[in-house]
Amino acid sequence: MMAKIKLGILGGGEDSLIGILHRVAANMFDQFEIVGGIFDQHHDKSLKFGEKLKLDEKRIYKNLDELIAKENSLPEDQKMQVVSVLTPNFLHFPMAKQLLENGFNVICEKPLTTTYEEAKILNEIQQKKNTIFGVTYTYTGYPMIRQMKTMIANGEIGKVQKVDVQYYQGWINQLIHDKEKRSSTWRLDPEKSGISCCIGDIGTHAFNMAEYVTGMKVENILADLNYLYEDNPMDIDGTVLIRFTDKAKGVIRASQIATGEENSFSVQIYGDKGGLKWQQENPNYLYLMKEDQPLQVLKPGHGFLSEFSLEGTKLPPGHPEGIFDSMGNIYYGVAMAIKDQSKYDGAYPKLNDGLRGMSFIEKTVSSHKQGNVWINMKE
Amino acid sequence: MMAKIKLGILGGGEDSLIGILHRVAANMFDQFEIVGGIFDQHHDKSLKFGEKLKLDEKRIYKNLDELIAKENSLPEDQKMQVVSVLTPNFLHFPMAKQLLENGFNVICEKPLTTTYEEAKILNEIQQKKNTIFGVTYTYTGYPMIRQMKTMIANGEIGKVQKVDVQYYQGWINQLIHDKEKRSSTWRLDPEKSGISCCIGDIGTHAFNMAEYVTGMKVENILADLNYLYEDNPMDIDGTVLIRFTDKAKGVIRASQIATGEENSFSVQIYGDKGGLKWQQENPNYLYLMKEDQPLQVLKPGHGFLSEFSLEGTKLPPGHPEGIFDSMGNIYYGVAMAIKDQSKYDGAYPKLNDGLRGMSFIEKTVSSHKQGNVWINMKE
Amino acid sequence: MMAKIKLGILGGGEDSLIGILHRVAANMFDQFEIVGGIFDQHHDKSLKFGEKLKLDEKRIYKNLDELIAKENSLPEDQKMQVVSVLTPNFLHFPMAKQLLENGFNVICEKPLTTTYEEAKILNEIQQKKNTIFGVTYTYTGYPMIRQMKTMIANGEIGKVQKVDVQYYQGWINQLIHDKEKRSSTWRLDPEKSGISCCIGDIGTHAFNMAEYVTGMKVENILADLNYLYEDNPMDIDGTVLIRFTDKAKGVIRASQIATGEENSFSVQIYGDKGGLKWQQENPNYLYLMKEDQPLQVLKPGHGFLSEFSLEGTKLPPGHPEGIFDSMGNIYYGVAMAIKDQSKYDGAYPKLNDGLRGMSFIEKTVSSHKQGNVWINMKE
Amino acid sequence: MMAKIKLGILGGGEDSLIGILHRVAANMFDQFEIVGGIFDQHHDKSLKFGEKLKLDEKRIYKNLDELIAKENSLPEDQKMQVVSVLTPNFLHFPMAKQLLENGFNVICEKPLTTTYEEAKILNEIQQKKNTIFGVTYTYTGYPMIRQMKTMIANGEIGKVQKVDVQYYQGWINQLIHDKEKRSSTWRLDPEKSGISCCIGDIGTHAFNMAEYVTGMKVENILADLNYLYEDNPMDIDGTVLIRFTDKAKGVIRASQIATGEENSFSVQIYGDKGGLKWQQENPNYLYLMKEDQPLQVLKPGHGFLSEFSLEGTKLPPGHPEGIFDSMGNIYYGVAMAIKDQSKYDGAYPKLNDGLRGMSFIEKTVSSHKQGNVWINMKE
Repeated sequence: MMAKIKLGILGGGEDSLIGILHRVAANMFDQFEIVGGIFDQHHDKSLKFGEKLKLDEKRIYKNLDELIAKENSLPEDQKMQVVSVLTPNFLHFPMAKQLLENGFNVICEKPLTTTYEEAKILNEIQQKKNTIFGVTYTYTGYPMIRQMKTMIANGEIGKVQKVDVQYYQGWINQLIHDKEKRSSTWRLDPEKSGISCCIGDIGTHAFNMAEYVTGMKVENILADLNYLYEDNPMDIDGTVLIRFTDKAKGVIRASQIATGEENSFSVQIYGDKGGLKWQQENPNYLYLMKEDQPLQVLKPGHGFLSEFSLEGTKLPPGHPEGIFDSMGNIYYGVAMAIKDQSKYDGAYPKLNDGLRGMSFIEKTVSSHKQGNVWINMKE
Repeated sequence: MMAKIKLGILGGGEDSLIGILHRVAANMFDQFEIVGGIFDQHHDKSLKFGEKLKLDEKRIYKNLDELIAKENSLPEDQKMQVVSVLTPNFLHFPMAKQLLENGFNVICEKPLTTTYEEAKILNEIQQKKNTIFGVTYTYTGYPMIRQMKTMIANGEIGKVQKVDVQYYQGWINQLIHDKEKRSSTWRLDPEKSGISCCIGDIGTHAFNMAEYVTGMKVENILADLNYLYEDNPMDIDGTVLIRFTDKAKGVIRASQIATGEENSFSVQIYGDKGGLKWQQENPNYLYLMKEDQPLQVLKPGHGFLSEFSLEGTKLPPGHPEGIFDSMGNIYYGVAMAIKDQSKYDGAYPKLNDGLRGMSFIEKTVSSHKQGNVWINMKE
Repeated sequence: MMAKIKLGILGGGEDSLIGILHRVAANMFDQFEIVGGIFDQHHDKSLKFGEKLKLDEKRIYKNLDELIAKENSLPEDQKMQVVSVLTPNFLHFPMAKQLLENGFNVICEKPLTTTYEEAKILNEIQQKKNTIFGVTYTYTGYPMIRQMKTMIANGEIGKVQKVDVQYYQGWINQLIHDKEKRSSTWRLDPEKSGISCCIGDIGTHAFNMAEYVTGMKVENILADLNYLYEDNPMDIDGTVLIRFTDKAKGVIRASQIATGEENSFSVQIYGDKGGLKWQQENPNYLYLMKEDQPLQVLKPGHGFLSEFSLEGTKLPPGHPEGIFDSMGNIYYGVAMAIKDQSKYDGAYPKLNDGLRGMSFIEKTVSSHKQGNVWINMKE
Repeated sequence: MMAKIKLGILGGGEDSLIGILHRVAANMFDQFEIVGGIFDQHHDKSLKFGEKLKLDEKRIYKNLDELIAKENSLPEDQKMQVVSVLTPNFLHFPMAKQLLENGFNVICEKPLTTTYEEAKILNEIQQKKNTIFGVTYTYTGYPMIRQMKTMIANGEIGKVQKVDVQYYQGWINQLIHDKEKRSSTWRLDPEKSGISCCIGDIGTHAFNMAEYVTGMKVENILADLNYLYEDNPMDIDGTVLIRFTDKAKGVIRASQIATGEENSFSVQIYGDKGGLKWQQENPNYLYLMKEDQPLQVLKPGHGFLSEFSLEGTKLPPGHPEGIFDSMGNIYYGVAMAIKDQSKYDGAYPKLNDGLRGMSFIEKTVSSHKQGNVWINMKE
């Protein structure tokens, strides 16, 4: 019997929104066994949460030093092989760094770090250590995003000439207009979140998606951000003009003051032979537009889809899957990578994607602060 | 540390569509641990599948007798507490019966049995044994179905006066017109499937849903079925006029020859104060219609929803969940019932729902064969 | 200069909902000139309304006798060539009869008459007089309905095996539960409306559409109607099982107590090679479903559509047309017929469609009153 | 009898797409009578088209000089009171100017002229002459756009903080990649179209709509345009960052290379109390989003809508209207203005809207050519 991969989790405890997303995803394909971790900075809360998960209390650790020491002392077939980092943004870097240095595979939430500098350091260490490092750009795991990526790669819509990605939420509207609230929200605290709120949290998803589905790299950006209040140090809305190589242009639109929007993330890609559209809140529909042909609506699970898309769908057409299934596909990709199955190489976002995301955040803020000027993504 | 509930599975192996649905659902909330079962009638295939799931090969059994004997010999804290029956329809009855008689809690796929008689026998045994018995009418676990049920119970749409449930698929069209194919399909073989194909497989979902969301009982039915070919012994399409008590009327429409449809299951309920609509393929949208008011679209995770609905959602609004999450909610309901948390009493479909489904199947076929006449559901 | 066709209108005055629908439709293609009529039973109101339309007051008549006498005394190139009858149902018959007998072409609202007998009489007269007689089943004029009809005729979805037409409204719910209101509504008064309310008003649309798009004839029907109150003489909801020749089966569903619904008229046709769906409230989308192919969404104005569909669209794709445009196409069909352009023969519903509608109404009520039995449409 | 307003038309002949849009709109509410005009630069074609419309050939003129001379010689109650200018862009200015100078009311297609200078001249003349001058920003006539405008004015969504308007088409993709085709398209010929193709043709609609529904003025813009080929003198795609007073920001996105898009014009407005969304291809749905409330979908014809919206709807809810009805509302607004009914003042776009549109076009191109810099709209 081949054992499941032993997984540890940092963060993701009682108050976490994303803890359950990672746990369900990890359990989805019989590849991982959650064995322990640190779920909360307060050890008692962490222990209590571990109990809820029916975990062995000996593997609920007080801190990362202890986790690394104890786990490394276990027999090879029992020790954690991979650790998911779900803590607040500013802890991603020190934790991921320590894990990498001690030889652990890592799954890390986005944004990868709070600065591009930190991300580069992680990147250097990982290249030396040659471990697996996944960054959970969750939405890339959706079967219809995979289909979109494959179709664009196959030339289905020809040469890309227009890219438009929107990520609109409204939740910050509820607190931004109240001085007390906006000064006590961790997302709006640069110490905890880095230099950007909206672009850092969701703009990065949009940027990553634009590059992921097109297979192209953004070369230049020009950003206009909105802070609404002078005492608010963090952007809560922004529009970023983008230019790819080959003069294909586009726009990334992100907002947390699009009042009433929930998680309205949508992708529109137009080439010289057709267009493709997708919306996260209805993830099982991919729209293919061709000149002088009926609109086509592609749905998961059909034989005419790409192998890469079909691998991400578990049931026949008509059985809607959701965001847990998308994250499940990313965890599965990491599992396959850990088992060294090279064909799954493209099946999860990597450290380099996280690094590029950090570059995007810094350059976007920089473009805005310099007066909305073009900045090259390569520098 | 409280242990997870030990779960065994019968069927659901390599060729199964629904095996993964049950496994993911069972793992979703850290309540169950799959420990073994019989995944295939061929022991070698079963063993191989167990290996894929990283299960202990000692708990992959040759047959149900062995499973019962061996599991019952284990210490109380290690033995299977509940067994999921995912085998073809005709095996539901003998397996569930043997499990019940030996004191196991059971989760069983629908249709519960192949005859109403069998279902009554199971019902009697269960009442004596007082075990937990869940029937997986999967769709009842969707948060917006729970919301619909609560709103109707709370009088939101007033007195129900019209019920319309559609369950359309197209898959049988692909084989029904070929004599060879239709004679070799197990769904069209009365020995394996019971007396009905379309009504048995999906009409029962529609019937169950009509009663589940309204909290009312269908009193009389009149059915017109379609077999298309004389040598085809099984209905593949049917329309059933229904009458509830209080003269509320309606219709259940089911088809497997609605060519091109995937899993088009929709529910429309109209009362004297409003109407509610829901579609399985877009399960995160519940439409509330009131006279002289804007159409309202309710989506999961919002604070204004019922507690029952919110318990079934794991993430904030805008993060779409799907059918795995719906089944997960049913498994969670069974877990809570096993732990004797009475407040979860309504959170999973029970043996009596399965029994009523068998009655519906038999009476529908009977109504059709007698010339499309009214039949009372109580007799 | 070829003159426009002179059109008279009966009814459709100040309180009328449909008057403007007919007037806009008539004016749409530069084919008709509205010259006069009788807009209200009270001559002063009629005159006032005529003034609003900027009509010559000499052609606003006191009654139909006068209209006929005066118009027939005018030179051929000035007299009304066609008269639209938009009065309450019970006036359709006497007015249309008198017009036919005096050689006028007629456009008549549906239901054609209040009894099948009356409809037969009109039919006989028209056959003798050989005039043009259009019945305004408005929805048949939509470009995507025309496309649906052409595609089915061309075998695009193969042999039809399932037909499902829904026409749900909620407006009667607002008055049906109040004894006073329901006794004072003309739609619920058999003297004014005929023997049926729901089936007569909207069930006929559904029936006509089922036959129109499939090109098939319903052979047998079995109906269950709902009256809700014993003192209510008129059905306000009903489900009708239908069987076409060739054992293709289906269902017509109509309701005026589907609370909150506006004008939810939808058509689903399934053949052995595909399916087609359309919804009146979103009339510019036709859904084509084929096994193992992406869903196709056909929209008006594209070169790949049938000539018959394209004739009904005035602008390039993306410019939504609505119900006025649909009615406009029917009026255009009548204009072409009057000018004896035989190729437009199928472009408007004819007296025979109205006759068949009356047969459907009577047989539906009869089926229900006999205890929900099958009735042959031919008798 | 009050006569209808006599309307003349310039352009809109056989090859015109929009001719029928204006004619149907003009006829819709019994306010206008089309009496003549110049439908084509070739008099014979013009005469032939006039015959098709059953017009008096004496009022089909050879040129504008003749039209003005002859019409002005007619008795006051017979002469054209208003003339619609539907010619190619470069003819708008000279024709509208001559009409204005000779005292005619004018309805003019957009873009108003080919330069801002020309628009200013028209504006000055109109102010002197005090005639009615409508500019057909067609989409502002939709009932749900009127509703949106009223709701924003009433504070329904609070203070506007984010505006996002998209206008995507794909038609130029079909010719832009072929050197021959792109050099022979009048839309891409600066002599005929002015300095901008995409922004001039559809970007102006988006800009006008942003200001129309919010009631606010754009203060600064920064544009990035796409020409795709160096020998193409006209933009075919562009994104424009916009800033209103009060630091409300937004973006206007326009493209004619969004391959496969038909006429995808959508408006998203977010305030601090809610958001509103609308899409032109489904014009009968207005989406209202409020925090912690169900999404509301407002549809035309309901009593809860604003008076301004209801005036633009002709039938009860559920009867979809389209673009002809939207344009009809604008023509009706012009008719009411001509009759000096001051309450209709806001019911049609005016010369000043066209002037502002020209300013937007010139400044957008200027921003792009200067290297994507901010330009103030006031200068």
